[in-house]
Amino acid sequence: MTQPPVRDTRSGSRRPLYNFSAGPACLPEAVMQEAQAHFRDFAGTGLSILETSHRSGAFMEMVARTENDLRDLLGLSEDYAVLFLQGGATLQFLMTALNLARPGQITAYVDTGHWSRKAIACAHEVRPVTVLASAGEDDYARVPEQSSWDSLPEDAAYLHYTANETIDGLEFDFIPDVEEAPLVADMSSTILSQPLPVERFDLIYAGAQKNLGPAGLTLVLFRRELLERIQHDVPGQLDYRTQIAADSLFNTPPTLTWWMIGLQLAWIRGEGGLEEMARRARERADLVYGIIDQSEGFYTNRVERRSRSRTNIPFRTPDPGLDARFLAEAETAGLLQLRGHRSRGGLRASLYNAMPTAGVEALAEFMNDFARRNG
Amino acid sequence: MTQPPVRDTRSGSRRPLYNFSAGPACLPEAVMQEAQAHFRDFAGTGLSILETSHRSGAFMEMVARTENDLRDLLGLSEDYAVLFLQGGATLQFLMTALNLARPGQITAYVDTGHWSRKAIACAHEVRPVTVLASAGEDDYARVPEQSSWDSLPEDAAYLHYTANETIDGLEFDFIPDVEEAPLVADMSSTILSQPLPVERFDLIYAGAQKNLGPAGLTLVLFRRELLERIQHDVPGQLDYRTQIAADSLFNTPPTLTWWMIGLQLAWIRGEGGLEEMARRARERADLVYGIIDQSEGFYTNRVERRSRSRTNIPFRTPDPGLDARFLAEAETAGLLQLRGHRSRGGLRASLYNAMPTAGVEALAEFMNDFARRNG
Repeated sequence: MTQPPVRDTRSGSRRPLYNFSAGPACLPEAVMQEAQAHFRDFAGTGLSILETSHRSGAFMEMVARTENDLRDLLGLSEDYAVLFLQGGATLQFLMTALNLARPGQITAYVDTGHWSRKAIACAHEVRPVTVLASAGEDDYARVPEQSSWDSLPEDAAYLHYTANETIDGLEFDFIPDVEEAPLVADMSSTILSQPLPVERFDLIYAGAQKNLGPAGLTLVLFRRELLERIQHDVPGQLDYRTQIAADSLFNTPPTLTWWMIGLQLAWIRGEGGLEEMARRARERADLVYGIIDQSEGFYTNRVERRSRSRTNIPFRTPDPGLDARFLAEAETAGLLQLRGHRSRGGLRASLYNAMPTAGVEALAEFMNDFARRNG
Repeated sequence: MTQPPVRDTRSGSRRPLYNFSAGPACLPEAVMQEAQAHFRDFAGTGLSILETSHRSGAFMEMVARTENDLRDLLGLSEDYAVLFLQGGATLQFLMTALNLARPGQITAYVDTGHWSRKAIACAHEVRPVTVLASAGEDDYARVPEQSSWDSLPEDAAYLHYTANETIDGLEFDFIPDVEEAPLVADMSSTILSQPLPVERFDLIYAGAQKNLGPAGLTLVLFRRELLERIQHDVPGQLDYRTQIAADSLFNTPPTLTWWMIGLQLAWIRGEGGLEEMARRARERADLVYGIIDQSEGFYTNRVERRSRSRTNIPFRTPDPGLDARFLAEAETAGLLQLRGHRSRGGLRASLYNAMPTAGVEALAEFMNDFARRNG
């Protein structure tokens, strides 16, 4: 794997920097090098991707190649449309409800944390919502098993769940069973981190800025059969029919984001595809959880083992003062953006596709050393 | 003014490239150099802007500086909120109607071409629309004078117009008078190309990818008093109240676009501000229209003089075969993206803030030479 170069830090010393941001997250070193090198010459045109018309031949070739790479990685059939839309996963909260449910039709959600609650609140503004289960009953320490959920209403427009919660660090270790209703998933923080049986889903969306590339676009995998369900009015670009008909170019997209998603997909293919991404994700997570579990209570993570996120690991030291010292010393050691989400405090390591093993090893070494010195 | 460097062209020869794209358009040479140089080190953090959390201190400082520079350039008071939103000017077509008009309340538009018709169609999906005047009666060769318009309905939610039409090359040479109703303008292709009496407007929006920076964000100037008009439900991030409360960070923004808008605003200030941008825009436009008008009919532009766009100049040679030869030879000469919009054909030169005088001079020389050889 390409290693990040030694770079100058703020203090003037030179050491590798590793970036544990929950998103916008670090990008693969090889992708960053290529993007900087070709920043002003996209596809040999002599123009920057930032200065290239999204209707130009060179741009359309890049779009086609990106979609092909994605289909190849996921084994995705033409039964699914691939969209790259603006407005974040947050706009998909609204679009799924507006499109897949008729006015007045009930929608079903599972609450496993901050992001599912945002999705629920947004859907609730435009459609009736029923919440089949909430991890809140266990203070978000575990994903409720499906056997404990309320049953899906017969006329529900769909079942929506959030595959991974980045703030509390909760991940589904199963794909919910639905009989008839469409299954919709927010996979912003886990997409392409492992092989995915897309055919079990009807709609998957994922903001780019964690596992796919820079911020600005959201990947949507849309089972074309669902189009038949949209018989009602949906305004403007919020209508999936409009976006599919326009090949995601109903309005000008952020061209650099699209290009760099393409670079990252090519990188994932070159590194060995989703099997290899899954192996690395498991390896990274096991390393950090291992240190937490073997720290004799110095580090704590409150999530039940089977529901632990592979990509977002919140943890704490025995007190907030020590958390602050951990952050400051980690920063000096070149381990950046380890602060927990402002709503929860504490610490958090986000470990997406682009995080090299060397970065997690550096974090592990620092965590062990810090515990030794302060335990 | 910084000149573009000599760059390698596709054919391997070395010559300056000038990019006349209607958008995403060329960016100032100094901005591109700075962005490439700091592509992997944003504000001395050692991290790329692409890998920086939008909640970080360094990002928030950049956001504040960008807004300050914009307020300074426009002389903009705190009566207006400054927003940077996703979804393009196209999403503003929908948001203006959904927010500023109550359900069932009539909205008023002026049709001067492709973009106003898109705005009208989008508003019409959610609110009643009346079109007070249409340039279509003159085949889009002039902006109808306000004295010829239907009068604004008393209960109209607002009057909307498109300050400049990029496809037909039509620009308003006046600001419409409205008595009581809010005035809304799409200024995507002219924002910051001249001093602007913002206080005559209630809402102005402008996609970034022409005069402001790369694609991915849309500037919205929103008179705060208008918030009182929004007493009805507007879903999720389509609600200006939500966006203003969240300082445009309701969901993750394309961080690089925001940063580069900041670089371009600083560049505009350094170059002399909006008076200087206006002088250059006039100079560029006069040069190209001068050649068209003095070509004894070889080049034609069908727009009446007072309505001619300063930023988008569509023109034709005597026949489509010659247009094609013009395009091919221009490309070889390093003059790129001069093809007219696919709906209209012909040729088009887009001349936004970042287009250096040397680029227009190179185009002028080429046009004169081409006319001599083919006239």
